[in-house]
Amino acid sequence: MKRKIKKINAAILIIGNEILSGRTQDKNLIFISNWLNSKCGISVKEVRIIPDVEIIIVKNILTLSKKFNYVFTTGGIGPTHDDITAQSISKAFKVKYEYHKEAYEILEKYYGKKKFNDGRKKMAKMPKGSKLIYNPSSAAPGFVIKNVFSLPGVPSILNSMIENCKRYLVKGLKVHSKTINLYTVESNISKQLEMIQKKYNKYVDIGSYPFFRLGKIGVAIVSRSNSIKKLNKVSKDILKIVRLKKIKILKI
Amino acid sequence: MKRKIKKINAAILIIGNEILSGRTQDKNLIFISNWLNSKCGISVKEVRIIPDVEIIIVKNILTLSKKFNYVFTTGGIGPTHDDITAQSISKAFKVKYEYHKEAYEILEKYYGKKKFNDGRKKMAKMPKGSKLIYNPSSAAPGFVIKNVFSLPGVPSILNSMIENCKRYLVKGLKVHSKTINLYTVESNISKQLEMIQKKYNKYVDIGSYPFFRLGKIGVAIVSRSNSIKKLNKVSKDILKIVRLKKIKILKI
Repeated sequence: MKRKIKKINAAILIIGNEILSGRTQDKNLIFISNWLNSKCGISVKEVRIIPDVEIIIVKNILTLSKKFNYVFTTGGIGPTHDDITAQSISKAFKVKYEYHKEAYEILEKYYGKKKFNDGRKKMAKMPKGSKLIYNPSSAAPGFVIKNVFSLPGVPSILNSMIENCKRYLVKGLKVHSKTINLYTVESNISKQLEMIQKKYNKYVDIGSYPFFRLGKIGVAIVSRSNSIKKLNKVSKDILKIVRLKKIKILKI
Repeated sequence: MKRKIKKINAAILIIGNEILSGRTQDKNLIFISNWLNSKCGISVKEVRIIPDVEIIIVKNILTLSKKFNYVFTTGGIGPTHDDITAQSISKAFKVKYEYHKEAYEILEKYYGKKKFNDGRKKMAKMPKGSKLIYNPSSAAPGFVIKNVFSLPGVPSILNSMIENCKRYLVKGLKVHSKTINLYTVESNISKQLEMIQKKYNKYVDIGSYPFFRLGKIGVAIVSRSNSIKKLNKVSKDILKIVRLKKIKILKI
């Protein structure tokens, strides 16, 4: 049975030399973080990007799975020698790394018996006791073991699978956000923002992020909270300062 | 004096709720990682993305600065209340958080005495003993303390400052890479690639990354090594298999 718990958090563990070396731009963090927040009320609190090295994966799985409610891994569950996520998670949790019966059947059916070679069979090997995350785009399933969710690194495939994680997740409260874009510089409003942050410290997080738009400098003030009421109060306070300082608002 | 040391590594610590929440796409990791490798022969071995929370920044600075030769932080050195990187690093290293004389002078000159308000003055506060990383685009300098380099989060500003980190870095050997793009699927060559990887395990890292291009599926085989000679040998071995299996090569 799913319970409504207030604050549920998650970490993302991105496994892959190609991201660390700067060869490939990660696109999964934004997608997973937005999905977790908007669909499940779960906030991502830490992301780590690590190389395809067994001992490093093992250590990070153990650390993050203790520290956070959920851990999402991306990458390293394909058919090649550098895909070692499943075997590393097995080691971390001291369970067997073996064929998952249903995953094996899904893949055998998908490829046909003749084309179901060793590389493809490898994708059916998982930590013993894993549950499957079905893959509607390329068959090879991800898996859930304890509080760890393992997804592939290819963004289009990951995106197609994410909804299938939902059944295993306990939901939290959604974090709402409100953005006010101002044509000013941060230091012009930093003192006042700090006072507003202090006033609502328990309920709202306020961040300020400089932007450049059509040659003009501005600041995006982003407030986040579980409570829409509190967000509206913060916005009112910010807009008071904006009027007082005669700052122009950018409406998008 | 700079020495040539073979393997020098670094971690990147990205500080900012806006990256974790999925609001903003990080662009600094790719830039820093490529710059470190191509200009300094330094490999990024871990990246962490964490929220703007003092105790979390302190812990991560301590962990990463012990574990790696260098740590690069991005974000949190602006004028607002959520910019707490400099004070957190001061706490981590148990040094005073105070005005840096030269940074103060640079900023006072840049803004003029009248417009040098409290928010802007904050950007001159750093861990005691810091050296400056000059900022040619918006004046506010970054800083180096021990093996930690603190840079701003705005990519265009960070990019303009990175060359000024060089004087403080000991260089390593550059990692070269070679990519062969094949029109095949990973599982068709996974066994052979594993054998080649084992043969050159000490010198070369081989990764395989699926791609989709104009409706066709392919795999990019990326080899990385300090030695160009060894890279060429690996490429020859891969191309042997490619011919044997009659796989088409995509030339870019």
